Amino acid sequence: MADDLKKGLEGVLVAESELSSIDGDEGRLIYRGYTIEDLAESASYEEVLYLLWYGRLPGEEDLEAFAEAMAAERGLEAPVLETVRALASADANPMSALQTVVSELASFDPDADADPTDSEANFRKGRRITAKIPTILAAFERSRRGEEVLEPREDLGHAANFLYMLNGEEPDEVTAETFDQALVLHADHGLNASTFAAKVTSSTLADLHASITSAIGALSGSLHGGANQDVMAMLKEVDESEMEPLEWVETALENGRRVPGFGHRVYNVKDPRAKILGQRSEALGEAEGDMRWYEMSATIEEHLGEEKGLAPNVDFYSASTYYQMGIPIDLYTPIFAMSRSGGWIAHVLEQYEDNRLIRPRARYVGPAPEETEFPDLGDR
Amino acid sequence: MADDLKKGLEGVLVAESELSSIDGDEGRLIYRGYTIEDLAESASYEEVLYLLWYGRLPGEEDLEAFAEAMAAERGLEAPVLETVRALASADANPMSALQTVVSELASFDPDADADPTDSEANFRKGRRITAKIPTILAAFERSRRGEEVLEPREDLGHAANFLYMLNGEEPDEVTAETFDQALVLHADHGLNASTFAAKVTSSTLADLHASITSAIGALSGSLHGGANQDVMAMLKEVDESEMEPLEWVETALENGRRVPGFGHRVYNVKDPRAKILGQRSEALGEAEGDMRWYEMSATIEEHLGEEKGLAPNVDFYSASTYYQMGIPIDLYTPIFAMSRSGGWIAHVLEQYEDNRLIRPRARYVGPAPEETEFPDLGDR
Repeated sequence: MADDLKKGLEGVLVAESELSSIDGDEGRLIYRGYTIEDLAESASYEEVLYLLWYGRLPGEEDLEAFAEAMAAERGLEAPVLETVRALASADANPMSALQTVVSELASFDPDADADPTDSEANFRKGRRITAKIPTILAAFERSRRGEEVLEPREDLGHAANFLYMLNGEEPDEVTAETFDQALVLHADHGLNASTFAAKVTSSTLADLHASITSAIGALSGSLHGGANQDVMAMLKEVDESEMEPLEWVETALENGRRVPGFGHRVYNVKDPRAKILGQRSEALGEAEGDMRWYEMSATIEEHLGEEKGLAPNVDFYSASTYYQMGIPIDLYTPIFAMSRSGGWIAHVLEQYEDNRLIRPRARYVGPAPEETEFPDLGDR
Repeated sequence: MADDLKKGLEGVLVAESELSSIDGDEGRLIYRGYTIEDLAESASYEEVLYLLWYGRLPGEEDLEAFAEAMAAERGLEAPVLETVRALASADANPMSALQTVVSELASFDPDADADPTDSEANFRKGRRITAKIPTILAAFERSRRGEEVLEPREDLGHAANFLYMLNGEEPDEVTAETFDQALVLHADHGLNASTFAAKVTSSTLADLHASITSAIGALSGSLHGGANQDVMAMLKEVDESEMEPLEWVETALENGRRVPGFGHRVYNVKDPRAKILGQRSEALGEAEGDMRWYEMSATIEEHLGEEKGLAPNVDFYSASTYYQMGIPIDLYTPIFAMSRSGGWIAHVLEQYEDNRLIRPRARYVGPAPEETEFPDLGDR
């Protein structure tokens, strides 16, 4: 037994996985061997889910059947929708609300009584969870705005339907494609903290819903999800400062301020997802005739690269991308969960396939019983 | 970087903790230096919570103030109670229901907007979570039975109030004391899988509710909580078999059947908690004038010890103890969560005090991008 204390478990190898791989020196991300560039360019989010869960890209018929089955699962049971409304009325934190409602889905799932490791049931449960998260988030947003909750539309793809349910109108093609790409880009990313939380939970043979609920909890922490919300807050600050972006960022660095959206534990070069999202942010600006958010971001990227040698991560360009799509800032992390649920489910399926209870050790550093004597209540 | 794959993280030291220590060879369990025997004998569950959270046993005034503040927090907000009723109507799994509702508590907590690491806010949040779990479980049970949900009674202690809310009458002294002891015995147990799930989640700086929600998920797995439910199912089978317990257990062993409630990863001798609960199971039988469940258990323990050298764990005697108190079998694991929430909260507080993101590695074993070429949809 090694007695080295590894508080972050850095470098400890806990699993083998066929799902995704990151090459931080080359700036490369692959899902099951396919590059993120090819997937973002050519595959829908539904195709990526199929790839992650079933181990291969779907054929035309596979994809159609899968996407149809998933679209048919988007609706929420009445009591679940009631919970969403109650949470919106309570002005709940959206990540906490999502965690609550995904947990609640378990109780209404037709496969609730299946063995937790039944893989056929888990494919169905996974499809339902992933299909319903957008409906939960759109219903939550519209409820808290005091607007009518919209029924999902089965004729739209996963990405476009979410934007329709959120905004009440069908998105234009650029917006729908961009959002679909954002979902593809965030679907998996090796063994991050939320994915590990899902694996730890499932390693007790807890069921899929319980495991995904854990992962949402972990993603809600500021050291994990949430950085793109910080980026957007910064961009709005720049916009409101009436300074030129270059001047603003120079001043910020002089004042020793940390700029969010830069650097990553894993990448030593520009995150490949940031490259793609940067292009999408630019395309959205062109479509709207307002290049402000993209140009602000590009200026900050250039300056941080020159001055500090820092490269942007995925959060840096997802901020302006989501903002230009009209998505409320505090939904950026829930949208991350919407996408990453696909990866979490795939990792839990892998965990069940070859399970071992995950349970490291802690070293007790409190007093020994020889040092203590139990005092009567009156003598304390 | 070690390249040994440690799928269960066995022997990997991830934390230092002052909370509890297990000596598996001596059969000893301590919380902050105090033996579990002294605590079970002399401390209430509220005292143990104070000890775990604040690092010392409370004085009389401390304890009174703490217990009163906690008793005042037992009630549920109306929308939370609505969720409990909806889950009971849906015949939800009780652990899944508990996970959902504890997550929902976050949205109604007066400290919801506090910084997740604000320790004063966390003491209040922890007190509320622990105070409300019994109310959630009793309301769930009475709702699914079609009975009126009872308001908590502030004049009763934590253990007695739960039994009152569950059964509609004040428990007798033996029963209330026994249940309080059971809560003390289960309050903490080193770094088990659910406690680790809470630590992983909180290590992203997710908040206390999100972290406890993760832990409940992990405890719901059959490799973690749930063994006492299996023990009780077995005892009922013995009772219904009309065989003598000794004959039944001999037959079971001849047939190669695994008897639940024996053996533990950590203890090589009898679990000290099993000793205490065995005495309580006997006392309950004596009080009721029905020694059947205790004697059945004692016979099985003796035979397994003689034949297999196996010693009972905490689950073995909690089964007959809870059963004799009239607690429904599928609430045994939720009651484990009711007690362990105290330990989970204490471990999360320790995690925040000295945080580092917990993120081990996975080894990618899928195809390399050189081996794959992205096929058009029509060519698959």
